[in-house]
Amino acid sequence: MSRFLNEQYRAVEAYTPGEQPRDMQYIKLNTNESPYPPAPSVAAAITKEEVEQLRLYSDPTAKKLKESLAGLYGVKPEMIFLSNGSDEVLNFAFMAFGGHGAVFPDISYGFYEVFADLYGINSEMIPLEDDFSVDYRKYCGKNKLVVIANPNAPTGMTIPVWQIEEIVRTNPETVVLIDEAYVDFGGETCLPLVEKYENLLVTRTFSKSRCLAGGRLGYAFASPALIADLEKIKYSTNPYNINRLTLLLGEKTVEAESYYQEKCREIAETRQWSTQRFVELGFAVLPSKANFIFVKTEEIDGGDLYRKLKARGVLVRHFTNSRICQYNRITIGTREQMEALIDTVKEVLYENQ
Amino acid sequence: MSRFLNEQYRAVEAYTPGEQPRDMQYIKLNTNESPYPPAPSVAAAITKEEVEQLRLYSDPTAKKLKESLAGLYGVKPEMIFLSNGSDEVLNFAFMAFGGHGAVFPDISYGFYEVFADLYGINSEMIPLEDDFSVDYRKYCGKNKLVVIANPNAPTGMTIPVWQIEEIVRTNPETVVLIDEAYVDFGGETCLPLVEKYENLLVTRTFSKSRCLAGGRLGYAFASPALIADLEKIKYSTNPYNINRLTLLLGEKTVEAESYYQEKCREIAETRQWSTQRFVELGFAVLPSKANFIFVKTEEIDGGDLYRKLKARGVLVRHFTNSRICQYNRITIGTREQMEALIDTVKEVLYENQ
Repeated sequence: MSRFLNEQYRAVEAYTPGEQPRDMQYIKLNTNESPYPPAPSVAAAITKEEVEQLRLYSDPTAKKLKESLAGLYGVKPEMIFLSNGSDEVLNFAFMAFGGHGAVFPDISYGFYEVFADLYGINSEMIPLEDDFSVDYRKYCGKNKLVVIANPNAPTGMTIPVWQIEEIVRTNPETVVLIDEAYVDFGGETCLPLVEKYENLLVTRTFSKSRCLAGGRLGYAFASPALIADLEKIKYSTNPYNINRLTLLLGEKTVEAESYYQEKCREIAETRQWSTQRFVELGFAVLPSKANFIFVKTEEIDGGDLYRKLKARGVLVRHFTNSRICQYNRITIGTREQMEALIDTVKEVLYENQ
Repeated sequence: MSRFLNEQYRAVEAYTPGEQPRDMQYIKLNTNESPYPPAPSVAAAITKEEVEQLRLYSDPTAKKLKESLAGLYGVKPEMIFLSNGSDEVLNFAFMAFGGHGAVFPDISYGFYEVFADLYGINSEMIPLEDDFSVDYRKYCGKNKLVVIANPNAPTGMTIPVWQIEEIVRTNPETVVLIDEAYVDFGGETCLPLVEKYENLLVTRTFSKSRCLAGGRLGYAFASPALIADLEKIKYSTNPYNINRLTLLLGEKTVEAESYYQEKCREIAETRQWSTQRFVELGFAVLPSKANFIFVKTEEIDGGDLYRKLKARGVLVRHFTNSRICQYNRITIGTREQMEALIDTVKEVLYENQ
């Protein structure tokens, strides 16, 4: 840190993304990427001619991609915002709508706390219940920016849409942000509510179910007025926020919807298979609707399991927060990757006896 | 605008990027893009396999590209910051270093004022001299964030490095940001000064001389402590800020340095040719070292010329600010594009008599 840094940011603890080690080839189950490539038609869209067109700026209005998404999800284009990954729209939302404070669960996407700290937003973290569920009543009538991931991370657990509606309805003076980064793997979207409530913001990403983590494309649905606010922040920070090729990849991804639906089904099946194997091995597994599972066992310390798996070439995500440090979050890979994981877990447990 | 938007941002006037019209095919000389495609080896680097790898996040540390740039420019990798276009690093710099106010010329990149407004930074705009030059003495001892584009936009005019050093030396308690977006077309870089002054930040972009406007890649040089501050902002907003393919394109671009040097020379030659033609037509042309020229004539109002060129399929950039509204900023295209431009200007002047 330099002595020039604005005092406001000195104490901020930045977010720590999942490790991207380069020392060896891992079975990489630590950052909730898809184990599948983008659809063949998507990969084929990047021709030499398209790469040469990179000399030109991207369309800052992203008109075509907004229209594609509008068609797919049955909303008007002016109810869609596009961002450089969903972290960017989350960042903008905290900037734009956090003025009266923010509230989110104590165990959720760790970045929410960072955004709040960055903008000096007073944040209230409500503990998840003992079973890691969200008690929606604790978020009603808060009159703060309410942020809930549904499914939640790293638990994978969902809250019903009628409970989200209660939260939105009882916070009419502030924005309720529902982070649906993982909704495509079996969750239920609250998208239909954006037509009814002007204070609901639903964020999504192409990084998980759309196999484009490295392409950096996120999006959001909301009332046109909320979207206009986000556009204002974008045009005041980085108008050309999305890569030109990524806009094209996004359009082609929308066209290949059935491929991605199929891959989501495969991941849900592999999640079920993996859950059963972990249960057979004596693990507790939270009921996940996401592309990861959150598991622990009495047999071995969570940090030890993480380190021993890593030493054997399998990378999972471990958090040191005392409430969840006995758990590991494991991305659902291919069936073959999960078989290798289970074999490695067995080895580690056997050696640990 | 919604009623939920934070009061702090309500009065901010967002930046207006150059128009990207889609109603017809223009000779597009309005946003300072390169008329040339990326080097053939750069375009060839995007294979189907690389596109498929987009399922994985990009390396948030951008280790390889930092090392490539470090090698090319002879600095340590920890003195380099990489961003999603140079607008992003400018944005971060205003956030991080604008705490004591900011100072920049009245006629310069219009985004500086937007960043300052966004973060509630008190900004002082110092008028350029009558000949549009920067009087460096007016920026000495300000003890604010000093921001100067060199070459300046939209004038294309430069200030000597010894004058920049005076500004940096006399503002030891604050950061001096030199925006070198256009330096490769004939300007002189102040990069060597970053080894000597811990308060100097030099920003660059791949959008202009590196033919990658749509790829979104910017960078900056500074002391390791300043770079660490920028990294902190990045890891608190969007750690995976750069597209995975763009990181690769950046590495390949560094390897193809001679191609880009050659294209910069061609643009400088075409700039000289174009300047002569405009002078012959009776225009005043500011002495530009950038990939654009700033021109006016007594024969026709600046706004009229812009509109009449646009109606004939040639797009240039016109600013309505009263001090420069008689001018148009014209990107240097290929020789053929500039010949077409000159012919069209002649037509417009003839019809205007």
